[in-house]
Amino acid sequence: MAQTQPKYLTGDSGAINEFIGQFDVFLFDCDGVLWSGDHLFEGVVETLELLRARGKRVVFVTNNSTKSRQDYQKKLTAMGIPSRVDEIFASAYSSAVYIARILRLPEPRNKVFVIGESGIETELRAEGVPFVGGTDPALRRDIAPEDFAGLADGSLLDPDVGVVLAGLDFHINYLKLSMGFQYLRRGAKFLATNLDSTLPMSHTFFPGAGSISVPLVNMTGEAPIALGKPSQAMMDAIEGKFQLDRARTCMVGDRLDTDIKFGIQGKLGGTLAVLTGVSSKGDWEQEGAEVVPAYYVDKLSDLRAAETS
Amino acid sequence: MAQTQPKYLTGDSGAINEFIGQFDVFLFDCDGVLWSGDHLFEGVVETLELLRARGKRVVFVTNNSTKSRQDYQKKLTAMGIPSRVDEIFASAYSSAVYIARILRLPEPRNKVFVIGESGIETELRAEGVPFVGGTDPALRRDIAPEDFAGLADGSLLDPDVGVVLAGLDFHINYLKLSMGFQYLRRGAKFLATNLDSTLPMSHTFFPGAGSISVPLVNMTGEAPIALGKPSQAMMDAIEGKFQLDRARTCMVGDRLDTDIKFGIQGKLGGTLAVLTGVSSKGDWEQEGAEVVPAYYVDKLSDLRAAETS
Repeated sequence: MAQTQPKYLTGDSGAINEFIGQFDVFLFDCDGVLWSGDHLFEGVVETLELLRARGKRVVFVTNNSTKSRQDYQKKLTAMGIPSRVDEIFASAYSSAVYIARILRLPEPRNKVFVIGESGIETELRAEGVPFVGGTDPALRRDIAPEDFAGLADGSLLDPDVGVVLAGLDFHINYLKLSMGFQYLRRGAKFLATNLDSTLPMSHTFFPGAGSISVPLVNMTGEAPIALGKPSQAMMDAIEGKFQLDRARTCMVGDRLDTDIKFGIQGKLGGTLAVLTGVSSKGDWEQEGAEVVPAYYVDKLSDLRAAETS
Repeated sequence: MAQTQPKYLTGDSGAINEFIGQFDVFLFDCDGVLWSGDHLFEGVVETLELLRARGKRVVFVTNNSTKSRQDYQKKLTAMGIPSRVDEIFASAYSSAVYIARILRLPEPRNKVFVIGESGIETELRAEGVPFVGGTDPALRRDIAPEDFAGLADGSLLDPDVGVVLAGLDFHINYLKLSMGFQYLRRGAKFLATNLDSTLPMSHTFFPGAGSISVPLVNMTGEAPIALGKPSQAMMDAIEGKFQLDRARTCMVGDRLDTDIKFGIQGKLGGTLAVLTGVSSKGDWEQEGAEVVPAYYVDKLSDLRAAETS
């Protein structure tokens, strides 16, 4: 497959101005683009200000499923990045929007069984979606001998559950997996906030949301609808929320297989790769590369050269 | 693929006598063959006695990884089936034998990090294999913020761990999955007692051992060596232990995709399907069936017709 190679913008003020002029909305991946771990990249705040000053909408798009938008805004603030809650689109919110506005299950069988942390609960509550599970302390325990019979006969299950939503859950256990499986066997729809296999933390990796839901995939043979990048269900939710014109929207990210793929499959007007994260030039320059960004810069703050033109 | 259809033995005393005469060793799957749930099938004890009386060795082969051979013998006794510990081959034992006699890792990096219950620990101890994890109460807790750094820098890890062994663990949690992943990243070998996706209990299904190890598969992209049916690593361990002649050994089971496949891939002299469990005649009679037993009976006790000939 012959792919056009991406345009390199670093140092080319004219090309940067032309690039920025094409778009009304910029979707930003965060880790690897704005910061790495707890280190904010230099010039990021000024670059975001430059875009906002030119009337561009800035949206922070994250697969982080443990945080609500409010929680995530606190994180941005702590990193030194000014933001508004309505600039944030996280996979917990994406999931809540999808369930409330797209799935729209009829009552009474419209409850969500949550495998995940409080961020998911906050977003479901804000969208008026009833749920069970989640951070309920009654489920943060070992499975007991009597639970097997109670799950088998359904007496421990809520008959109104119509959706299983699995995200990152630091309190995952055998009981929750067993309950999720029983709900799915009884016909509940299977959703996942996102399918990242690992979670980057402390300069290494830990189990990601996709490794919390994968036992249910293994048991049912069914893949969930994912509401995080690169799933287009997330793009649909973003489009619905911001009423954006895809042709005038650009996805900015460091990973070809999630961020750039997300933008290309979403038929956005553009994709911009930054080289401060996971993927490198070699990844799209190699023979047979399937995901190639439209533009790239060494680092996000290279866009500040637009000011001087 | 044209497959010879299996020979039906029920009611044919001559054929049954000829069948039994071909073998010295009978490997028995248990659930679905000897019993279902907690219901012992009629005539099973007498059938096993008939085989023993004719000088046949009887081996109970189970993927159950939570029980040691001693534990499993108690279960057989409780079901009303007389047995000896040395007639039992369970996946925890299979794993211990594989690690101690086949893998034979050199000291000091020969410790096993166990994800599983006490049966695995009992069998590792009996084979003189050092281990950590397992039922250690220190790991039966939520992950704490400081654990992320401690796992990242290795201070919470045992440098002598060279194997991660994952079986069914009713106390699985995020901390254990994180530790297992870190050991694998540091080069530990990846073993699983068995890969059953589900566990039949209380007339329904719960997460099986394969659904406990699958997050690690998802994170590493690496499949473990499995020590349960139908993995031939288990057959090698059985052969090593009993010094059996494969040509004079018959696998008896109710599932084509585990038991019968196990016998065929192991190049045993024969396979006998019983119709009291999961698979039915239609499964091997359908177009393109890949696993076809050599013999079948309606139920195990049909072999008792041999007595009357």
